[in-house]
Amino acid sequence: MKRFALIALLALPLSGAAQQPQTAPELPAGTVANEHNLDGVQWPRIDAEGRTYWRFQAPNAQKVEIRFRGEMTKEADGWWTYTSSGPEAIGFHYYQMIVDGVNVADPNGRTYYGMSQWVSAIEIPEGAEGNYYRTQDVPHGEVRERQYWSEMTQSWRRCFVYTPAEYDANPNKRYPVLYLQHGGGEDETGWVRQGYMHNIMDNLIAEGKSVPMIVVMDRGYASLPGTATQSAPGQMNPQLAAMLAGAAPPPAPAAPAAAPAGRRAPSLFPELLVKEIVPMIDKNYRTRTDRESRAMAGLSMGGGHTFQTVMPNLDKFAWLGGFSGGAGSVEQIETAYDGAYTRVDAFNSQVKLMFLSIGSEENPDRVRLFAEALQAKGLKNVVYYESPATAHEWLTWRRSLKEFAPLLFK
Amino acid sequence: MKRFALIALLALPLSGAAQQPQTAPELPAGTVANEHNLDGVQWPRIDAEGRTYWRFQAPNAQKVEIRFRGEMTKEADGWWTYTSSGPEAIGFHYYQMIVDGVNVADPNGRTYYGMSQWVSAIEIPEGAEGNYYRTQDVPHGEVRERQYWSEMTQSWRRCFVYTPAEYDANPNKRYPVLYLQHGGGEDETGWVRQGYMHNIMDNLIAEGKSVPMIVVMDRGYASLPGTATQSAPGQMNPQLAAMLAGAAPPPAPAAPAAAPAGRRAPSLFPELLVKEIVPMIDKNYRTRTDRESRAMAGLSMGGGHTFQTVMPNLDKFAWLGGFSGGAGSVEQIETAYDGAYTRVDAFNSQVKLMFLSIGSEENPDRVRLFAEALQAKGLKNVVYYESPATAHEWLTWRRSLKEFAPLLFK
Repeated sequence: MKRFALIALLALPLSGAAQQPQTAPELPAGTVANEHNLDGVQWPRIDAEGRTYWRFQAPNAQKVEIRFRGEMTKEADGWWTYTSSGPEAIGFHYYQMIVDGVNVADPNGRTYYGMSQWVSAIEIPEGAEGNYYRTQDVPHGEVRERQYWSEMTQSWRRCFVYTPAEYDANPNKRYPVLYLQHGGGEDETGWVRQGYMHNIMDNLIAEGKSVPMIVVMDRGYASLPGTATQSAPGQMNPQLAAMLAGAAPPPAPAAPAAAPAGRRAPSLFPELLVKEIVPMIDKNYRTRTDRESRAMAGLSMGGGHTFQTVMPNLDKFAWLGGFSGGAGSVEQIETAYDGAYTRVDAFNSQVKLMFLSIGSEENPDRVRLFAEALQAKGLKNVVYYESPATAHEWLTWRRSLKEFAPLLFK
Repeated sequence: MKRFALIALLALPLSGAAQQPQTAPELPAGTVANEHNLDGVQWPRIDAEGRTYWRFQAPNAQKVEIRFRGEMTKEADGWWTYTSSGPEAIGFHYYQMIVDGVNVADPNGRTYYGMSQWVSAIEIPEGAEGNYYRTQDVPHGEVRERQYWSEMTQSWRRCFVYTPAEYDANPNKRYPVLYLQHGGGEDETGWVRQGYMHNIMDNLIAEGKSVPMIVVMDRGYASLPGTATQSAPGQMNPQLAAMLAGAAPPPAPAAPAAAPAGRRAPSLFPELLVKEIVPMIDKNYRTRTDRESRAMAGLSMGGGHTFQTVMPNLDKFAWLGGFSGGAGSVEQIETAYDGAYTRVDAFNSQVKLMFLSIGSEENPDRVRLFAEALQAKGLKNVVYYESPATAHEWLTWRRSLKEFAPLLFK
């Protein structure tokens, strides 16, 4: 492997493509490279039925596994092989390589923040019906990265803001805003990198299905001051500053006290969003600031954040969506949010849309039953969507956004 | 390791922090976590003199190395250790873990696109003198991700566009533009993620050292139509489209013919920038479009792209910078760019700034001698900057931008 490392180093200035030799073995007929591989990398591959074909070069490893799939087989040429036993579910699937027990991102692939690390992905793609999330020949909006100071956390934070294609050409027009949150173990990069939300919104707006809107994607983690163990890159943390100034580094802050067994510590994020993020967005973008021009949605943990944010703040939001859980369950209907679901008239006058979605392959009953129970109580504007043949992954959430966004602000 | 994988999976919804157990071993006194680790991850660490301390958990591996450093030592507890033999050079350094011969990104760190893969980084930071690249309490610009269609490559491409903090508040003001390019093996994400260019520009503009400007960062790779082996994620490539439509996938395109030994194929990128990227930027942003309001700079390969773009197009650009090579050498002065360096009066009237920089630890003589020879010919506005104690890495380039940007558009 030393020899390959040297070759890779010499080749650095020449190309953006990966350097792992891709000569052997032969490519199986009827397969194409996974779309999340590095440019020019042939493995893993997929066929039209969704089978996956893997080869990984590791001549000195004792054991190579693919996380969530299984052990690979070592061949005589130093490459390891694995083929799925049958078609896999369509959609975007995280994976890691496990090399002699160490879980790592596949060095031959692009990396995504998921599972609380930078990991790999393989996609069993939709055909033309997936074009709603692909880059099309339509006007394109921008995704803007913004830094802002948070008083609550006493730290600089980052968010991404989608502005529609027409935004800069209409300097006097104001837009409604959707706050759109990632899931647990993911971060503020997820909706663009894994979700292609910018393509979805560009396509919906170009077709006239959605009204042009601003979409804000923030980081669904927030720590009280002094409890963060590390600053973001490009920022100086107190430990480092003290050390570089010649003082002994102060001890790392203690981890926050654990929540009681079986309960999670409540997240600071909903409060942060209402108190700081919404005002920051309203100050820096041409937003409409009435409640009927403000929506929130999220997936999984982000669905929880959405309901925790919107339901106690119906003076500020009128539209909400929970994708793949986090929104609630039948058992909580009478008591959740101080009985808000039992005050039918108030709910119907305030909530323009409560959208609940889930993939058909991720035990959809709990979400469907929740939606049906809300509807049975007389709550209007509760919409249920079930994504066919998808699990707890980004194709479910791309589809959920495609179904949700056209209903907003109308 | 199976057990840890299970724990990590169960813990997914709870936190954005990495899941690898970080309990053992003890943290050495006087050290802090590398700023490019995942939140909460303690290893690798650095001390105030720039020594690096590494621990990596791999109980089943036979051999673990740190690329560019050396072999780690296996301890009884399944953790591997390595400590640098002395202080390392300050700055941002790429690395990989090599686990039983497989080069991978450190699963405990953030990933950056460099060395033609998503890899890891350790930084020996500057103290307060590094604040110019850190997030400060000043007005912040935005970094905007934009997709655009290229006729030359027949593909969708992506660029990042920095707009200064005041941009949206001055809808009738127009701004000069700097085109700023990454190096070989890196991509259009490099100047923001590794270089913190947005912080550097925010800080320079807030201090009044630089005029507010737009900065465009594009992808320095371009292929002729039909030669790309793969589309970007979120786009449908012809092979995949054919396969999903039920046809046999067309064969992958043949690799372009190799350049003659010892010579690189000329890059398409300079032509693409002039013919397509500049007009696209001028159409979508409030730019000033005269030559004295347009600059270009880049590092290493991007320095080459800069000189190849600007020198034959002095009707369109008046300012250029080459950081850490690629700009030229003493031997080429008489012949390069059709003798442009020999026409002293024309050069002096056209070139408002030719900035050449390099790190003191990367054999600076060739760049310094080139700059001195140009100056000795009577070429005004040739500026040489040598970054003290840094090598061929991003601290050299952050500093180069800090020195270069204040000279522009004045």
